[in-house]
Amino acid sequence: MRIAELSRASGVPVPTIKYYLREGLLPPGEFSSPNQARYDEGHVRRLKLVRALVEVGRVPIGGIKELLAELDQPEPNVHRAIGCALEPGLRREPEEDNPEIAAAKADLDQLIERRGWNVDDCSPAYQQIAEVMVTLRRLGTADLLDGLEGYAQVADKIAEIDLGLVARHRNDPGHVVFEAVIGTIIGDSLLQGLRRLAQENLSAKVFQANAVSS
Amino acid sequence: MRIAELSRASGVPVPTIKYYLREGLLPPGEFSSPNQARYDEGHVRRLKLVRALVEVGRVPIGGIKELLAELDQPEPNVHRAIGCALEPGLRREPEEDNPEIAAAKADLDQLIERRGWNVDDCSPAYQQIAEVMVTLRRLGTADLLDGLEGYAQVADKIAEIDLGLVARHRNDPGHVVFEAVIGTIIGDSLLQGLRRLAQENLSAKVFQANAVSS
Repeated sequence: MRIAELSRASGVPVPTIKYYLREGLLPPGEFSSPNQARYDEGHVRRLKLVRALVEVGRVPIGGIKELLAELDQPEPNVHRAIGCALEPGLRREPEEDNPEIAAAKADLDQLIERRGWNVDDCSPAYQQIAEVMVTLRRLGTADLLDGLEGYAQVADKIAEIDLGLVARHRNDPGHVVFEAVIGTIIGDSLLQGLRRLAQENLSAKVFQANAVSS
Repeated sequence: MRIAELSRASGVPVPTIKYYLREGLLPPGEFSSPNQARYDEGHVRRLKLVRALVEVGRVPIGGIKELLAELDQPEPNVHRAIGCALEPGLRREPEEDNPEIAAAKADLDQLIERRGWNVDDCSPAYQQIAEVMVTLRRLGTADLLDGLEGYAQVADKIAEIDLGLVARHRNDPGHVVFEAVIGTIIGDSLLQGLRRLAQENLSAKVFQANAVSS
């Protein structure tokens, strides 16, 4: 197909496609004549992936290049590619490692050990959790951290569902990364909404029953 | 205590305290002389709650007034107060009820019925979930919705932990609302981080094992 058809098939405007081509985020088409490149289904899929990474994952161009380089290996490391996609998306206002952060990280390390998690303590998620723990303590709500163990167990269940969904496409690493990004980022919003509904349902039972009986 | 001490005790600057007093978010102190008001521990707690609602919950002033009016009832309805605090905080770009949204809501209604949830279909969370479902379908990743049932089960577990934590303070409705807001809003960030760590741990197992064996 020509670039105009590629644009229609992928939903990505032609100028954006040209930009991706210049940046090397999309491999060049096959030139049938010096001014006429042809694209195929592989280009459509790649464009959708790049689009999801930019718009949903907000992954910087450098990160996308790294990720695509990994995907284009003969035996791509899907775990590493997913990491490239998801790490930059986390909210992060790095804070100096003051004693409060250090104490939170020590607690978090114990949690990680109890769960048997093999994770990188440089990951933004690790930093984010430590900062949340400090925030809860500063607000005088350290007792909410009593829920940490339970939340971590639930996180394992969520990750099991997440990975189960994307692993169905394991023969198509590009699609695994595509779904991992969308499922994780959009999935945060889904889980947030479901948590609110479940809270609403349970809070009515816990607190209205109380209001009536008191 | 005087207003300067109230400011120190609560961490809220004096001009902000005066603004809250004018807006009726903080009850007036007791006047010991025409220009000298005295505040007590109740004011400190109320200020911390208002602060958390504004800064963490991003609840509009009108919503805070409604919530405080509920809390100041002789028998406050804590369920309703928590609702006032949390509903406005959800991301919401309302979308016309087009056929896609209507179809998503029909699916969501079935899920809600299967879970036995007693929830308001006007709540922003309900709308948010329907919109996420539409987004996933539009992106060509409708198959990720196969996880919806599992995610909803997990949401019930999360809500159980959430409510269990705050219900320990049921004799102090103001503190229940305070912790519900902080635990829910800051808790979203905590759960997001834990989900990422759990994914990282599991993805290494699922996909790196594959890379090695292939």
